[in-house]
Amino acid sequence: MAAACLARYGVHNVRIIDKRSTKIFTRQADAFTPRTLEILQGLGIGAQLISEANEIIEICFWGPIEAAKIMRTGRVPITTPGLSRYRHCGLHQGRIEHMLLDKIALWSTPLHEKRSNYTRPPLISVERAICPELMNLPSINASALSDALEDRIVVRLRHLTEAEAKPAQFCPSAPDGLFRSNVFEDDVPDASPIGLPQIETLEEVRCRYVIGADGARSWTRASLGFKLEGESSDFFWGVIDGVPFTDFPDTRKLCCIHSATSGSILMIPRENEMIRIYIQLPQVENGERPNRNEVTPEKLLKLANLILAPYVIQIPKVEWFTCYQIDACHTHSPKLGQGMNLSMGDAFNLSWKLAHVLQGKVHSKILDTYEFERQPLAAELIEIDRKLARLFSGMPAKDDLDCTGISLADFQRAMERGLEFASGTTVEYHQSIITSKPYFCHQATLTGSDLAKNIIVGRRLHSHQVVGITDAKPYQIADLALVDGKWRLLIFGGDIVNDSTVKERLEDLLKNLRVIELFKDPHPRGQESKLKVEPLLILASTRLSLEHHDFDDILRPLEGKSSFRSHRKIYTDDQTYHQGHGHAYKNYDIDRILGCVIVIRPDQHVSLITRTTDHIGIMNVPQIVLFYLFESKPATPWRSHKLTVVKSDETLVPSNNLW
Amino acid sequence: MAAACLARYGVHNVRIIDKRSTKIFTRQADAFTPRTLEILQGLGIGAQLISEANEIIEICFWGPIEAAKIMRTGRVPITTPGLSRYRHCGLHQGRIEHMLLDKIALWSTPLHEKRSNYTRPPLISVERAICPELMNLPSINASALSDALEDRIVVRLRHLTEAEAKPAQFCPSAPDGLFRSNVFEDDVPDASPIGLPQIETLEEVRCRYVIGADGARSWTRASLGFKLEGESSDFFWGVIDGVPFTDFPDTRKLCCIHSATSGSILMIPRENEMIRIYIQLPQVENGERPNRNEVTPEKLLKLANLILAPYVIQIPKVEWFTCYQIDACHTHSPKLGQGMNLSMGDAFNLSWKLAHVLQGKVHSKILDTYEFERQPLAAELIEIDRKLARLFSGMPAKDDLDCTGISLADFQRAMERGLEFASGTTVEYHQSIITSKPYFCHQATLTGSDLAKNIIVGRRLHSHQVVGITDAKPYQIADLALVDGKWRLLIFGGDIVNDSTVKERLEDLLKNLRVIELFKDPHPRGQESKLKVEPLLILASTRLSLEHHDFDDILRPLEGKSSFRSHRKIYTDDQTYHQGHGHAYKNYDIDRILGCVIVIRPDQHVSLITRTTDHIGIMNVPQIVLFYLFESKPATPWRSHKLTVVKSDETLVPSNNLW
Repeated sequence: MAAACLARYGVHNVRIIDKRSTKIFTRQADAFTPRTLEILQGLGIGAQLISEANEIIEICFWGPIEAAKIMRTGRVPITTPGLSRYRHCGLHQGRIEHMLLDKIALWSTPLHEKRSNYTRPPLISVERAICPELMNLPSINASALSDALEDRIVVRLRHLTEAEAKPAQFCPSAPDGLFRSNVFEDDVPDASPIGLPQIETLEEVRCRYVIGADGARSWTRASLGFKLEGESSDFFWGVIDGVPFTDFPDTRKLCCIHSATSGSILMIPRENEMIRIYIQLPQVENGERPNRNEVTPEKLLKLANLILAPYVIQIPKVEWFTCYQIDACHTHSPKLGQGMNLSMGDAFNLSWKLAHVLQGKVHSKILDTYEFERQPLAAELIEIDRKLARLFSGMPAKDDLDCTGISLADFQRAMERGLEFASGTTVEYHQSIITSKPYFCHQATLTGSDLAKNIIVGRRLHSHQVVGITDAKPYQIADLALVDGKWRLLIFGGDIVNDSTVKERLEDLLKNLRVIELFKDPHPRGQESKLKVEPLLILASTRLSLEHHDFDDILRPLEGKSSFRSHRKIYTDDQTYHQGHGHAYKNYDIDRILGCVIVIRPDQHVSLITRTTDHIGIMNVPQIVLFYLFESKPATPWRSHKLTVVKSDETLVPSNNLW
Repeated sequence: MAAACLARYGVHNVRIIDKRSTKIFTRQADAFTPRTLEILQGLGIGAQLISEANEIIEICFWGPIEAAKIMRTGRVPITTPGLSRYRHCGLHQGRIEHMLLDKIALWSTPLHEKRSNYTRPPLISVERAICPELMNLPSINASALSDALEDRIVVRLRHLTEAEAKPAQFCPSAPDGLFRSNVFEDDVPDASPIGLPQIETLEEVRCRYVIGADGARSWTRASLGFKLEGESSDFFWGVIDGVPFTDFPDTRKLCCIHSATSGSILMIPRENEMIRIYIQLPQVENGERPNRNEVTPEKLLKLANLILAPYVIQIPKVEWFTCYQIDACHTHSPKLGQGMNLSMGDAFNLSWKLAHVLQGKVHSKILDTYEFERQPLAAELIEIDRKLARLFSGMPAKDDLDCTGISLADFQRAMERGLEFASGTTVEYHQSIITSKPYFCHQATLTGSDLAKNIIVGRRLHSHQVVGITDAKPYQIADLALVDGKWRLLIFGGDIVNDSTVKERLEDLLKNLRVIELFKDPHPRGQESKLKVEPLLILASTRLSLEHHDFDDILRPLEGKSSFRSHRKIYTDDQTYHQGHGHAYKNYDIDRILGCVIVIRPDQHVSLITRTTDHIGIMNVPQIVLFYLFESKPATPWRSHKLTVVKSDETLVPSNNLW
């Protein structure tokens, strides 16, 4: 994800190494939340992903009515209507890895090569069967994100031999018994690493930044000397994947099932008629761990049948199974699907900032906002999950007087709260240099959020439909604010046709924007336009009352090799022929006379809402971000250095050898 | 298209030969109509196509206000709202060829090979640089579609040498001056045929059927001795493709532009910011043809600027240009985009019937319905086009008294009528063995169309949304009636929850369907289900009142390798969480108590509408089609023979040599 985003933003001096010798083929993470789908749509992967994935619409709660009999006790939509234009959906991790790999190749192939018949390899590709062994910082205590020293990180990489690289996922019985996959036989040949060296080789990389994307047992974290602190729960769960044969009616819905005394199940519908079942394992005496080697698909299914009674379930062909403990290794239980989603969100948050720094647009201080913005989410997830895990693994109360049992109503409420968090659409970043909450703003923008009462500064902009004035097409605003590394000004200019003051106000604003270097049209005939901040105009007049050539050239910049005037900057909030009216002004609660300007960050989060007359405020935001922070150093040195994304196996332990 | 459909339906003993040595890279057909998009969606190409194509929403009419000044005189949506869930869109022919080639490879790769690491070539692929030279029928006068003789067609194929196969489209100056494409330079290497023989070779193919998909100057037609009769018009038009630099405001809309005296333009927005301009050439004296060699992009653009005045247009990089006459060679002008769309519709109509015959499901008489159903469309197109071409190429009347000029109002009406026809969604097939118009039906179905007043028998079923009872997902009915070669029974069972007679009626129907061989569940554990006619139930009860396991097994057949019970057969007309209510019963005007059964042909056209109690009528249709017509001959002989699709260059002339 980080490499794909960096490639998208034009940062190509990146290396990405992975201890695995192949990509993931099946199993592991398998759920996408609405916000992840929004991000992937912004990256151009949305349509393919949605066509392959299985949308999950409803969550059903099942509880005991008597000893060995469950019944449906409630159902609600998984994604609260109105939260996003996407819904939760299921698709295994291998597919999204595949799509990201495709995009990395596409985006890191230099532009002038693209149409050539002679294909050069892309500048970024995942280098497999390589693991980091040692990482040297000038001082382990210095901020890893300071750019005081160029070239300061030295990473020693070990290129694995074929024998070492044999991926554990395909070993019939891995040492720790964790992964004993019944992988499709015909996937096995693809999984054999080829072309790996016969003897181990070492490599030294000098780089400016290292991203450790190496999971809960992160080698990167450990080698920086940080400790993972947390607590273990005593709950063990098994997981099994496959196409079920069953009379249980809700296999195509997300199900939370509590039996009276046999434990709980979480059931998730997946692509290709498959389901995934999370099955609670019986508590082991003396706090010992269950012997993972003794967990078999047959035992898991036997347990599942006890919980599901009176329904019966079989999985004739088990595609994958495992078992896990909710412990410090799994910092949260996987049931909210947040392992992949939250960390893709982390990478998404970090990568545009890093790209800005590496491209010399901003001071590296911006990187501090990464932890500032993302750490609270991790904390919140762990808190929600702790509560949910306890309620999920607990035995249902027999009656109102049973204090040892859990309340299924409490559980349902906690699950609904968990799913809202999991949707990712309510993530709200706090006040910082890149997020101007109304009450922190200077005088002119004091009424910021009053201008668009239904938009929350710091959240991602919820999408509504507008219509293009040049082509009469419906557009989602989110599809205008593409994920391409650019900041955007959404100018809600109001109804310029029926009120001349509104028109004058807009003309005034555009005139002022023209004087700023950022917005100037630097397009020499025959070159791509490189506006750093893209202005988009969204009016509140009828489409038929507007003509494209009446607008300032700043909204019709020259684009493309053949220098055509862009027709993609001006929209209005009006009826479409086939897809109704988006009512964007009404939905955002923006006044059709007053209007407003919304500054959108490259990650689609709202940075600022201000008046259209607040020329200084509007100019300030991109200036602060893009110039004020930028200490104009010569930008050459780091260009030749590599950025390394480490994606090594979780079980990898840092070498203790001094180097 | 024919090869892709046949591959989809499981007919793999097909050869497809093409005189061209490469696929099309650019130019030629470039518009998709709503019905074509519906068909391609049914074939699983819809999402990719739509993501690449440019939707065209509005058509603008421009006329003269004074000598050299045009103004906008009207605008309407191209696709009448409510006609289809798709709109007209533009994308060049090369892309759809690409997608069809992908699908041919996918569908003609035998199932058990698909997951293997060792990839065998697909059973069908386009064999290029091959042209037919001679075709022998037992008797040229015998119906080409009779299957009295197996093996009876002998086709001699010539495998072209590299020198012969050099495609005319890339010659800088082709002999007839027709194609002098400014193709992207970097496309040229791909376009060079490789691996072609140095010396010419001949091949003899014996086959049961030949499809001539070789255009207006069809070699196949000529070799059958048929003559193309028609008349020429004197109108010549030039075509030019590229990204425009212009102040004309409507380049992202379809534009029909009449100048006062300089001629007319049709302008179409395309993908990648391109437009296509059709430009009327000045009439030539004495009825002579303009010299095509003298037509240059510069001359075409000069003409365009005269017509567009006061607006100015440049195309810095011309991607392609040509000129054509509306004559017997172009049986209709390309302006309605019907060259590709109507002929894809032809292939789609023919191929399921041919597949049925080749698979021994029906008598070959069904093939007679191909011409019966499609010929009237061709005639209608030519009639509409003749009128439109005259109005388009004519000079606008100067005033009401000017009888020699054309009326722009007449033109706009003709264009709107032409576009409705072009949408392809109003195509209606007449009464035949596969289409039971209400007034032709026997007693029980006399009131056929009264049962669903908004569905016209013979037209394709317009899609509405329903909701799945097992997964709470919204589905388009058209997406349930996939294009997979199967007939379908849409059982609108009514509201079975609130009326016990409705429930009994449905149970009665399902009981009766069970006794028919067609609907029996022939699924031996571990094999794919092979229902020849798929029943789908669409109820009018609330989703929450329905449980999947309450339904007859005929609606929950065993499917897939691991024999799970299908959860994709039962739907209801109810609210969804995120996409509203489809109101299918209301939109089709089907009574919620009476219900009805709609028999859908494999091409999504409605074959019959009847009462749910009309067990005989319902059974009759598939029985007549699938059994009555089938003379139970041994089905083996033809299996070894090849079906040949001829796709040769239009300019190819049949050899006069006797063979």
